[in-house]
Amino acid sequence: MRCRVCREKAAIRIRRHNAAFCREHLIEHLRRQVARAIEDYQMFAGSERLLLGVSGGKDSLALWDILTDLGYRVDGVYLHLGIGDYSSRSKACSEEFARRRGLELGIVDLPEDYGFSVPDAARATQRSPCSACGLSKRYILNEAAVCGGYDVLVMGHNLDDEAATLFGNVVNWNIEYLARQRPVLPATGNGFVRKVKPLIRVAERETAAYAVLRGIEYEVEECPMVAGNTLNRIKEWLTTVEQDSPGLKQQFLFGFLERAADGFEAVAEADLRACEHCGRPTTAEVCAFCRLRRRSVEAPVGERGDG
Amino acid sequence: MRCRVCREKAAIRIRRHNAAFCREHLIEHLRRQVARAIEDYQMFAGSERLLLGVSGGKDSLALWDILTDLGYRVDGVYLHLGIGDYSSRSKACSEEFARRRGLELGIVDLPEDYGFSVPDAARATQRSPCSACGLSKRYILNEAAVCGGYDVLVMGHNLDDEAATLFGNVVNWNIEYLARQRPVLPATGNGFVRKVKPLIRVAERETAAYAVLRGIEYEVEECPMVAGNTLNRIKEWLTTVEQDSPGLKQQFLFGFLERAADGFEAVAEADLRACEHCGRPTTAEVCAFCRLRRRSVEAPVGERGDG
Repeated sequence: MRCRVCREKAAIRIRRHNAAFCREHLIEHLRRQVARAIEDYQMFAGSERLLLGVSGGKDSLALWDILTDLGYRVDGVYLHLGIGDYSSRSKACSEEFARRRGLELGIVDLPEDYGFSVPDAARATQRSPCSACGLSKRYILNEAAVCGGYDVLVMGHNLDDEAATLFGNVVNWNIEYLARQRPVLPATGNGFVRKVKPLIRVAERETAAYAVLRGIEYEVEECPMVAGNTLNRIKEWLTTVEQDSPGLKQQFLFGFLERAADGFEAVAEADLRACEHCGRPTTAEVCAFCRLRRRSVEAPVGERGDG
Repeated sequence: MRCRVCREKAAIRIRRHNAAFCREHLIEHLRRQVARAIEDYQMFAGSERLLLGVSGGKDSLALWDILTDLGYRVDGVYLHLGIGDYSSRSKACSEEFARRRGLELGIVDLPEDYGFSVPDAARATQRSPCSACGLSKRYILNEAAVCGGYDVLVMGHNLDDEAATLFGNVVNWNIEYLARQRPVLPATGNGFVRKVKPLIRVAERETAAYAVLRGIEYEVEECPMVAGNTLNRIKEWLTTVEQDSPGLKQQFLFGFLERAADGFEAVAEADLRACEHCGRPTTAEVCAFCRLRRRSVEAPVGERGDG
């Protein structure tokens, strides 16, 4: 197996592109894929202020590395979720990466700053931890971007993440979510900054290979709360299917974006108003995050939630 | 495991309905599912002339049985595809079923009446046999309905068939096919009769169980040309996924029909004109079936096709 570019011994084969790459040209290939996504979807300009959601995993650190190499100035924000050793290790990876490269990393601490952890929220609401975590991340990372005066919140979701989310939304035909599944969500003008996903053309194993080849130390363990998570199961199914049909995930996701997504956008946007508690846009009196926070902070430790 | 209705020993468990049924009540259950599909989608009235596409397999024979029991008068049409023993056996099953119940069965013979078999067509076009077969079936069964003065063409596609087709169309985001994936396709007024699928609420293993319990002799073997067929592979994947999440296929299909299908219908219908050869509606000068026929009949036996 030889590198498509230089014919040297390849480090990785990418079957959906019917190509293999050596170390150097894999790095170049991923940089080009990210640059192309930014350009294709007009994600941002170099003059804009960019904030990256950093988890300490391979995707966000690889993306930070690539964007920096492409010449963008990107600050990071790490959200400490209060998930024991997993959070400590991923925070340390994020801080170490930023320190070595002289990059700015802000830290938000869910237990300290908001009074509850993801395990607290899962217990209090009896919802899956992933649901409480996703809701908190969306809210707090946007909050960090708004308060820091950033133009754009950059997220590290990759092709596998987006294909799995799309699949989940298609299986349920969740029209509202389908309407919002885009590589770029424009700023709303009333509290949400623009949100972009530059890794949309890059698969999970490619960011992992990139991180390894670049010597990036990332948190390798999966979050311990993710077991049985629906999105993870969908990812496993799709990966099995992809083995039979290389390119299927990409075809599924980009076919949607090119031919179907506009149709779902026709769905009327719900009327948004200001959350009575925090002032951010919501369809309810109090936004979902403030409700989650209230229940998670109020629930005494060990309580199984109020249903 | 006890029957949901009479608490007798159950013959089959249907996990997506969280129910089990004895012989008698499974039969009643399937009859009710078919009656409900006919009513929900206003498929046809008892006064209309109905023609059923009969393959000799479990689905079409079970459906013929159920519709007859529900009091509908339904004639059948069997299309002989020229696939060796498989075609001979499935024809014999169809004829035997009709004879025993005193039902009308017309026979169309692809090799005799049209001059080519499905294997001929696959060879001549170098397309998959399933593609040539599907195209021929759609054309010829409609032709039989039109020429026989029928109002409705009834097809035996079940829940698994429709979910797999939908999945295939979604993975490719084939908007035109998605717009036409309905349990009822209205007559076009220029050559297509109404086409309906009353088994849409019934899974494959349920029609199999029904056929066995009713003593219906059907062709048990799968078509020998189907190996590697994409739709079959999708069916297998979906069945694996369904085992983890009972009801997923039904939720996927009916979620589409209830919440998404209308959006795809907005896609402009292509301009249809009469095929220069047979006069049926087509978007091209000569319709796809007449092109397939011309190539399949012209190609000498053994020729690998003209690409």
